[in-house]
Amino acid sequence: MLDIKSFIAGRVSLMESSEIREILELTEGKNVISLAGGLPDPKYFPTEELAEISSYVLKEYGWRALQYSVTRGLREFREEIARFMERTGTPGEMPYNIIVTSGSQQALNLLAQVLVNPGDIVAVEKPTYLAAINEFKAVGASFEGIPVDDEGMRVDLLEERLKILKAEGKRIKFVYTVPTAQNPSGVSMSNDRRSHLLELAEEYDFLIIEDDPYSHFMFEEVNFKRLRSMDKYRVIYTSTFSKILSPGLRLGWVAAHPDVIDALEIAKQNADLHTPTFNQLLAAEALRRGVVDKHIPRVKEAYKRKRDVMLEALSEHMDGLARWTRPVGGMFIFAYLDENIDTKEMLPEALSAGVAYVPGSAFYVDGSGRNTMRLNFSYPSEEMIRMGIERLAEVVKRYATSSV
Amino acid sequence: MLDIKSFIAGRVSLMESSEIREILELTEGKNVISLAGGLPDPKYFPTEELAEISSYVLKEYGWRALQYSVTRGLREFREEIARFMERTGTPGEMPYNIIVTSGSQQALNLLAQVLVNPGDIVAVEKPTYLAAINEFKAVGASFEGIPVDDEGMRVDLLEERLKILKAEGKRIKFVYTVPTAQNPSGVSMSNDRRSHLLELAEEYDFLIIEDDPYSHFMFEEVNFKRLRSMDKYRVIYTSTFSKILSPGLRLGWVAAHPDVIDALEIAKQNADLHTPTFNQLLAAEALRRGVVDKHIPRVKEAYKRKRDVMLEALSEHMDGLARWTRPVGGMFIFAYLDENIDTKEMLPEALSAGVAYVPGSAFYVDGSGRNTMRLNFSYPSEEMIRMGIERLAEVVKRYATSSV
Repeated sequence: MLDIKSFIAGRVSLMESSEIREILELTEGKNVISLAGGLPDPKYFPTEELAEISSYVLKEYGWRALQYSVTRGLREFREEIARFMERTGTPGEMPYNIIVTSGSQQALNLLAQVLVNPGDIVAVEKPTYLAAINEFKAVGASFEGIPVDDEGMRVDLLEERLKILKAEGKRIKFVYTVPTAQNPSGVSMSNDRRSHLLELAEEYDFLIIEDDPYSHFMFEEVNFKRLRSMDKYRVIYTSTFSKILSPGLRLGWVAAHPDVIDALEIAKQNADLHTPTFNQLLAAEALRRGVVDKHIPRVKEAYKRKRDVMLEALSEHMDGLARWTRPVGGMFIFAYLDENIDTKEMLPEALSAGVAYVPGSAFYVDGSGRNTMRLNFSYPSEEMIRMGIERLAEVVKRYATSSV
Repeated sequence: MLDIKSFIAGRVSLMESSEIREILELTEGKNVISLAGGLPDPKYFPTEELAEISSYVLKEYGWRALQYSVTRGLREFREEIARFMERTGTPGEMPYNIIVTSGSQQALNLLAQVLVNPGDIVAVEKPTYLAAINEFKAVGASFEGIPVDDEGMRVDLLEERLKILKAEGKRIKFVYTVPTAQNPSGVSMSNDRRSHLLELAEEYDFLIIEDDPYSHFMFEEVNFKRLRSMDKYRVIYTSTFSKILSPGLRLGWVAAHPDVIDALEIAKQNADLHTPTFNQLLAAEALRRGVVDKHIPRVKEAYKRKRDVMLEALSEHMDGLARWTRPVGGMFIFAYLDENIDTKEMLPEALSAGVAYVPGSAFYVDGSGRNTMRLNFSYPSEEMIRMGIERLAEVVKRYATSSV
């Protein structure tokens, strides 16, 4: 009997399938309100503008839009990205500092390949972005989880850990952070902590990955400086067009020291040769025409409204059952339930009641956070948000009673 | 002094930058006729049809074309791929046998990740496709190189090696082959050898990767059966839209046993979440409208003409200086020079004379083939082919004399 599974390489077992994607599959086609995903609201995609741009690009560039192109990305696209960064607070990027990636998932995948030797220690926020954990784990990283409070990562606690590790002859290779409108906690790192983090990077000789998908969607007046604007040597910056234009085009980028870009280029050539030429030209033209810049405030306003609707619904239905973050930006609220409640165990009950969320433990490198959950407000309609939270409250009430 | 390079992980040194890309960069913008690349002739891209389809897709599917989608690829696209395979001689594929990839480079990258444990033995043709060698090497494969003659891989020699390896307690994990219009040699494996290869796969329990980018561009009446049409268990099939539609869209696919597809799906989720939704819808519609089917014979005719022009030019200028293949399909002629000539060493001289080729040793896993070169006829115009071969002949003449 032919056993195909026996041919599969060991490294596949290190790769984790995203829990979120699994939940999404469970809810597909069913009458479940999903607060689990991380999808942008497609109502706001600039679909008509992109239809116009598509025709223009194929007319203007002709076959060049359909031919192979260079691995690091079209120069004109990298120039537009540098300009976009400049006008949104991160000046000084040159095309040779930038590589185009097939979404920020690929950026994280290539960074993991290029930076992590098995056993290297990576420091991350606790909680942090699930997909980043999975990427670093798949190449053999071990983790230091640094707690987050209202001002973002507890850099003082990071410093303590650095001291202890140093005494043990160990070091942190890099810190991965989502400093602005963090996923999943919704907080932003204060500028003081950002400065402190950069000082520690010097002192303890580590790099920093600044993952920045949400900083264009800030609902409050938050004064923040991107880490990349403060240090062009140690900070590797990554962002994505998924939220500022369209996720289905799969476009992201990394801005970093040329030595990092060179290594990423080799890895990317192995991965997929280059990001689609056509898609790069679409996004370059969308930047050039101001489609992205006009798109951002529209989306921001909509997400702010939805956040407020979710906060209201939480106050109305979940008061006393949980506490939750008031995110300054982004797409998620993070909720903390009673310590006795395991949100992973509760999930099947929630699904039967017609509401889905992501159990928070997936965002903790140390397996803690079992009483937490991530709630998405960018995708569901305002009505669905209200209904979803109402359903969720009922489940929590019932579950809390039955599990006591 | 901050040394960023010291942060780069060891595995990057295992990844080889493609020699072809390096040569392409050397020739860029210079007055060099490049017979080195592997580019399709963009004159034949269905640019207008794709402009029409782009508008249609964004109108018909609206935001769905711009939203995230599932990792294995849109079901309707996988169905169109299955239909295309059926009407071109490989019936019986189901959507669950298929995963969409970001070009066939990604297909090879994911297959390498999913199948190769460090030290696993992979058998390949000698010569074989350079990028495949690099992918398998990067994950720690070791190689068995099996010579090729006019009927493709010498399966009898593979059998000898299998016997010897078995006696040593070793095995081959899989055979990677480009059986039809092989790159770089241009030959096709006879059906008898294909049957023999499948028998050996049973007897010695290995898998087969059938890489099939060129089989739609056969210039001669070659009677061949795809390996995948002969065995749906052991044969993993991969192909690409780069030659039948457009390389700049970065679309490829793998058809294989569901257990392989499942593993590829996990690896692809880590790699880039999914292939761009928009691009998949474009290609699905191009298949539906018959754009691909109409495109293929046009391109085939053009490439056949160009092959003939190159064969003629070779006869005229290189007679007595080299022997060369008469490819039954594809985009390349492979040439064998005098044993004393090292084509890698000769390359700088060729570049100064205004012509580029790929030194053949890159296609040999054992470092042999130093007197060979690959010549591309799909991209340059007929005039450039003639001029290029004329220049090349001068270089070889001069070099042969000077190096004696």
